[in-house]
Amino acid sequence: MSQQCGNSRIAGCSFSVHPMSDEFVEHIKGSLKETDTSNVWIDTDEVTTTVRGEIEHVFDVTRAVYLQIARSGVHVAFNATYSIGCPGDSEGDQYTGDIGDPANGLRDVKQNTNAKFSLYPMGGGDYMDVIYREIDRMKEKGIEVSAAHYATKLSGDVNAMFEGLEDVFCETEKSGSSHTVMTVTMSANSPSEKGKRS
Amino acid sequence: MSQQCGNSRIAGCSFSVHPMSDEFVEHIKGSLKETDTSNVWIDTDEVTTTVRGEIEHVFDVTRAVYLQIARSGVHVAFNATYSIGCPGDSEGDQYTGDIGDPANGLRDVKQNTNAKFSLYPMGGGDYMDVIYREIDRMKEKGIEVSAAHYATKLSGDVNAMFEGLEDVFCETEKSGSSHTVMTVTMSANSPSEKGKRS
Repeated sequence: MSQQCGNSRIAGCSFSVHPMSDEFVEHIKGSLKETDTSNVWIDTDEVTTTVRGEIEHVFDVTRAVYLQIARSGVHVAFNATYSIGCPGDSEGDQYTGDIGDPANGLRDVKQNTNAKFSLYPMGGGDYMDVIYREIDRMKEKGIEVSAAHYATKLSGDVNAMFEGLEDVFCETEKSGSSHTVMTVTMSANSPSEKGKRS
Repeated sequence: MSQQCGNSRIAGCSFSVHPMSDEFVEHIKGSLKETDTSNVWIDTDEVTTTVRGEIEHVFDVTRAVYLQIARSGVHVAFNATYSIGCPGDSEGDQYTGDIGDPANGLRDVKQNTNAKFSLYPMGGGDYMDVIYREIDRMKEKGIEVSAAHYATKLSGDVNAMFEGLEDVFCETEKSGSSHTVMTVTMSANSPSEKGKRS
């Protein structure tokens, strides 16, 4: 579980949320305002928002930003690249204050979501068994898992899904991969859920 | 250049477009209708659209879907994972008809866009010099290039940018990387262009 995953290396995530609504600015600003980001370094530019800090805080903040918008009922997409151990990464731009527990709650909010994720362990390690085990654990949490081109497809509750994604990221890191990247694409409240989009 | 990049291996892209408008369905359906996808295998599910085929057609189709929406003036985001040579990839789901030249034109449409891309050459190869050379070529085409956490940031004309991205993907493949993944996030017509989003 995430609480056992700590190490001193800085993790991070470059992500974006896309509310498909004329009120997208209000949704994004409202979500960022409601989300407690005090435990991460955070910066938003023209393309993405980047958060950096301990793994559990990086996942907590990205989950909360997405969930704040999704629970409003608007159709929203979420795209994220989680990374740890990139050889070209700087030691700068990291949070240096007091680190507490993940602060964003919302764990009881039920929200169905569809997702695809891909894991790129680029620094060695013995990770295949780890990945299969963690995917099995996602199934035990009620997440539907299926294969897709270039990704693994997930469907189920958003909190269970983020927990599973954090675990597979952590456990891959612990398996010895010195540089791990995980990309995640999510969609909630799509009018075409359970069907084709086009 | 892309025309010299052919090999027999199937490439593909899992991507999504997110028009931030109440009319997102019309934008997406209209774009897919206007785009010539006859040279690729294509499938849309709840999360992404996947196209598979020759590299130049994969880039042509994804560029056109994004550009069709962007040129309407709506704020739109594009997220894509381009992949070739994944060891777990199937030989199935590929286009088997006559392959012609990229069919989607729109090369003269001017559209400014901001982007971040990351390249993951996971199958060896001597690619670092290749990547630096191709990034220099993007600069020569008028694309602004800067560093960001977990990605390289690009800003400029969307057609020049897609050409540059296709070239860097192709040249990395040609450098000997047996499995190459490139992720791309783009944004056009953002109300916060040249500024902060939040």
